[in-house]
Amino acid sequence: MPRLTFWYEFASTYSYLSAMRIDAMAAQAGVEVTWQPFLLGPIFKAQGWSTSPFNIYPAKGRYMVRDISRIAAARGLAFHMPEPFPANGLKAARLAVLGMSEGWGARFSKAVFAAEFAQGVDIADDMALSQLLNGLGQDAHSALARSHEPLVKDRLRAATDAAEALGIFGAPAFVTPDNELFWGDDRLDQALAHAKKVS
Amino acid sequence: MPRLTFWYEFASTYSYLSAMRIDAMAAQAGVEVTWQPFLLGPIFKAQGWSTSPFNIYPAKGRYMVRDISRIAAARGLAFHMPEPFPANGLKAARLAVLGMSEGWGARFSKAVFAAEFAQGVDIADDMALSQLLNGLGQDAHSALARSHEPLVKDRLRAATDAAEALGIFGAPAFVTPDNELFWGDDRLDQALAHAKKVS
Repeated sequence: MPRLTFWYEFASTYSYLSAMRIDAMAAQAGVEVTWQPFLLGPIFKAQGWSTSPFNIYPAKGRYMVRDISRIAAARGLAFHMPEPFPANGLKAARLAVLGMSEGWGARFSKAVFAAEFAQGVDIADDMALSQLLNGLGQDAHSALARSHEPLVKDRLRAATDAAEALGIFGAPAFVTPDNELFWGDDRLDQALAHAKKVS
Repeated sequence: MPRLTFWYEFASTYSYLSAMRIDAMAAQAGVEVTWQPFLLGPIFKAQGWSTSPFNIYPAKGRYMVRDISRIAAARGLAFHMPEPFPANGLKAARLAVLGMSEGWGARFSKAVFAAEFAQGVDIADDMALSQLLNGLGQDAHSALARSHEPLVKDRLRAATDAAEALGIFGAPAFVTPDNELFWGDDRLDQALAHAKKVS
């Protein structure tokens, strides 16, 4: 079966757009998707940025909000800019890494994106994350504790290093088994088509 | 008739993609396009950049070449990265501004883009620009001389100021009569649809 890895960061507005549609699109295309959380912070830092480029370059930031709002409206998605922006997605990313090894990572990730961008929830908040975990039938207290274990932290660090090695510089990104990189929600169709071509 | 302004910069790889298809797409959509050259240099400088972001951020630059190559191949377009990159498009932009007032600006702009990105011509070279002008039936010597007149220079400067005032931070950009901004070749469909909606 054709395969595609979906690299995403919880603070990323365009990752939200992809998270809300990738499973349905991949199923229709007959492509198996691996959800892969990573952190943009270290990659941005290596480029000399201490925050989102949408904060560093205000015209770009204002445009992004218009662009996402138009696309979300066309897709029937709610969209609100998180406060603060970018959200601190570290805890959510560690939980997602833990969830991937236990079979609930993709569902949790979608719940995080929807809470953050459709409902304005602060995803850095333990209470908010606990509610999302409970909603998925997970023991929130146990999951939060396990997400702080060195193995989970190391796995997230390794994923971020792997992203950088693949040439990833933003999110979302899609990578096919031949290491072809596609950047941005608007390249998802192309990425799925390429995954099928090389399978 | 619905209207759309196409803001482009001759050094911009994604502007090339749009220049090669916008007239056909706009005709099919029943939208009248105004070709509007401007300079990204002053806008980048205001953001603290002294060259293309594709040079400042190498991972982004490498990705851009892959991305454009894939899209160009899918559209049956030739694509070569100019040397040096970014090309100095000042002379070509002044000629395009002159040409707009005389009815040959869009044809000249398409010829410049094709020479630069399909044939590897250095568009900062007077001889190369003369050939393109002659190919359009223009007196190259006279056109080059007139393109250096203060009125032409002022018009290009005013266009660049207007671009910045519209919130333009990159190229290509598309602006509808209600000042809605669309950035990037991959937003051309959306921009045409919006132009029709608000006409």
